[in-house]
Amino acid sequence: MEEVEVAPPGRLEVRVKVIFTSICHTDLSAWKGENEMQRKFPRILGHEAVGVVESVGEGVEDLVPGDHVVPIFTGECRECVYCKSDKTNLCGTYRVNPLKSTMVSDDGTRFSVVDRSSGELRPVYHFLNTSTFTEYTVLDAACAVKINPKAPMEKMYLLSCGISTGVGAAWNTANISKGSTVAVFGLGAVGLAVAEGARLRGAARIIGVDINPEKFSKGKEMGVTDFINSNACGKPVHEVIREMTDGGVDYSFECTGINAVLREAFVSTHDGWGLTVVLGIHATPKMMPLHPMELFDGRLITGCVFGDFKGKSQLPELVDKCINGEVNINFDGFITHKMPFSDINKAFQLLEEGKSLRCLLNL
Amino acid sequence: MEEVEVAPPGRLEVRVKVIFTSICHTDLSAWKGENEMQRKFPRILGHEAVGVVESVGEGVEDLVPGDHVVPIFTGECRECVYCKSDKTNLCGTYRVNPLKSTMVSDDGTRFSVVDRSSGELRPVYHFLNTSTFTEYTVLDAACAVKINPKAPMEKMYLLSCGISTGVGAAWNTANISKGSTVAVFGLGAVGLAVAEGARLRGAARIIGVDINPEKFSKGKEMGVTDFINSNACGKPVHEVIREMTDGGVDYSFECTGINAVLREAFVSTHDGWGLTVVLGIHATPKMMPLHPMELFDGRLITGCVFGDFKGKSQLPELVDKCINGEVNINFDGFITHKMPFSDINKAFQLLEEGKSLRCLLNL
Repeated sequence: MEEVEVAPPGRLEVRVKVIFTSICHTDLSAWKGENEMQRKFPRILGHEAVGVVESVGEGVEDLVPGDHVVPIFTGECRECVYCKSDKTNLCGTYRVNPLKSTMVSDDGTRFSVVDRSSGELRPVYHFLNTSTFTEYTVLDAACAVKINPKAPMEKMYLLSCGISTGVGAAWNTANISKGSTVAVFGLGAVGLAVAEGARLRGAARIIGVDINPEKFSKGKEMGVTDFINSNACGKPVHEVIREMTDGGVDYSFECTGINAVLREAFVSTHDGWGLTVVLGIHATPKMMPLHPMELFDGRLITGCVFGDFKGKSQLPELVDKCINGEVNINFDGFITHKMPFSDINKAFQLLEEGKSLRCLLNL
Repeated sequence: MEEVEVAPPGRLEVRVKVIFTSICHTDLSAWKGENEMQRKFPRILGHEAVGVVESVGEGVEDLVPGDHVVPIFTGECRECVYCKSDKTNLCGTYRVNPLKSTMVSDDGTRFSVVDRSSGELRPVYHFLNTSTFTEYTVLDAACAVKINPKAPMEKMYLLSCGISTGVGAAWNTANISKGSTVAVFGLGAVGLAVAEGARLRGAARIIGVDINPEKFSKGKEMGVTDFINSNACGKPVHEVIREMTDGGVDYSFECTGINAVLREAFVSTHDGWGLTVVLGIHATPKMMPLHPMELFDGRLITGCVFGDFKGKSQLPELVDKCINGEVNINFDGFITHKMPFSDINKAFQLLEEGKSLRCLLNL
C-alpha cells in the first residue's frame, strides 16, 4: 500500500472514488509480468470495479459528480467509425490496449508518487483504461458507464469485466439459441459467465471442461449440466464431446488461453455450423493450430472483447433489466469471497490457487 | 481418349449424357497429382459440366430422362441433419470429398475398361461426385440439379463450379452489401466470379490482387475497379489496401491456396468487422498463419464450399433469374476459349499457362 497522488481529471476525463473492486486473471498475469506487453511499472492494476464520480473534467457532458459508474477497459467514444458501426464494439480511440499506460488526452498519467531519494514526483502508470486498485482513479469518460443508482454496487462491479465478457459472448457474439448445446473450456469466472449466459438463453446442454474437478460443483450451481475432466477422460476431449452430442456442440468457448485447448474447442463443435468463441488471453507467440482446409468443414472461430457489448450504449439497459427482474444473472454465484481492500494480497493468492472466482474488495 | 464402359445408374443415381464440360484448377491439380488425397487412378476427372439425363436408377423421384442437369460436386440429399439446417450446405451423405472415388450406394464404380493383357474389366474411379470428362457419367441424383430447359446449356455449365462458388461466396457467405469495399486475391475464374458477385451487389470498390498483370484487363471487364500487382507494389499488399481504403476492405477473398496470401487477405480487411472468405485449396500441411489474439481485432475468417449454395434447392431459382434477366451474371466473360472435347489436352495447357479462364469443351 502506497500513498499516491491522484490528479484532477483532464479534458473528457472523470475522477472516480472506487467503492468495490476485484481481481481478474488479467490483473494476476500483469502482476506477475507474464505478458511482456504489460510490463510497465510502477502502475496501478485493477479493472473490475464500481465507483462514484467525484469530479469531471472539461467537456464531459454525460456524467456529473455523484453518478454511479462501472469502469470499462474498452471504451466507447460514440463518434468514431467503429462506434458508429453496428458490427463492432472496438472503439477507435479508447479500445483496450495492453501497451497503453497513459491517458489519451495528453499521454500523461494522473497518478504520481514522491520519489523517496530525490523528493520529486514520479509518474505511476495506468492499466487497461481503468486502474481500480486505488481509492481514486481517473478514467476517460468514454470508459465510465453510468448505471442506475438503485442498482446494488456490490454486484454491478461484475459487469466491469467478467460477467459482461462471458454473458456477452453467449448473447452477442454467439447468439445462443434455445435448445442448443454448448461447451465451455475453463471454468473460471469468465467460463462460468458464459455458462450463465447460455443458461439464460435456454441452452439444452452446457458441458464444462476443466482440469480441476473441484470446479464442477460450482459449475453445476451456475448452470453447467455436464462436466469433463480433460486430464482424466482417457481420450481427446473433442471425441468425448462429439459422442455426448451426436457430432459436436453448436457453440464452444475457449476461456483458458491455452493453444491446445483452442484446437480442442474448435474441433468439439459440430461441423457445418459450429462456432467457437475465443475469450482466453493467448500470451505466447504460438499461432493458431488450425489448418486452412478445416475452414471448409463449416466451423467458425471468432474472438470477442468485452462480450461484444458497446459498454456505454448497452450496459445501462442491462443493469435496469437486472434490477427489474427481466434478466436474472446470478451475480452472487460469482462472489466467492469478500474482504477489505487491504487484504488484496490474500485475494491474489486465492485466485492464483484457483480457490476463488471473484473476491469482492471494499475500499 | 479411351473407350470406357458406363454402367446403368444404381439406386438413387442417374446416368447423364454430358453436353459441355470445362476444366477447373481442381482438375488440373488432380491431373498432376499435386494433392495426395486425389491420387487414385485410373479415374475420370472433370466436375464442371451440363448434360441431359439419359436414364434414372431405382428410387429417383425428381429427375426423368431428358431433364437438363448441372452436376454438383457437393450434393444435397435434403434429408440429413445438415440438409435440414439452414446454416450449412454440407450434406452429410454427398458432401464433397476428395478421397471418395466410388459411388455411395454400393461403394462401386460405374466406369470400367477392358484390361488389355487379361481381357478382364478393371474399375475406373469417380472424381468429386461428378466425373464429367466423358460422354456419359453416372451421378448420385443428389448431385444432379435439374435446371430450366430453356436455359442456355453452354453458359449454365459454369454454375457447376466456378460461378456458383465465387458468386455464392460474395452473396451467401459474405453477404456483401451495397457500397462496401472488396479485395479479391487471385484473379482466376473463381476470383473473377467473386468480383462478379460483388459487382452485382453494388460494391463500391473491388480491388483485384494478382502476380500476373495481364489478368487486370479481363478483371476490369468483370467489374474489378483497382488492381494491385503483388510482385511489384513495393510493400506488403495489405499496407497498400489499407491505404487505399482508409483502414482496410470490408471483405477479402482468398482464391489462390497460398498460405502467405491467406494472411495478406486476412490483414487487408478493416479491423472491427472485416471478413475474409477462403476459397483456395490449401494442399500443403501448413497451418493458418494467424495468431489467436488477432481474433480480438474483430476480423473474421471463414471458408465456403460451393458458395454456400444448397445446390438442388437454390440453383434452379438462380437459373430462372438468369433467364428472365433478374440476375445479370456475365457468363460469357468467363468463357475465353471454345473447342471440341478431343482438344482437352490443349485446354489443360491453356489453363496451366494462365491463358484461359474457362474453355468450353463440347462433346
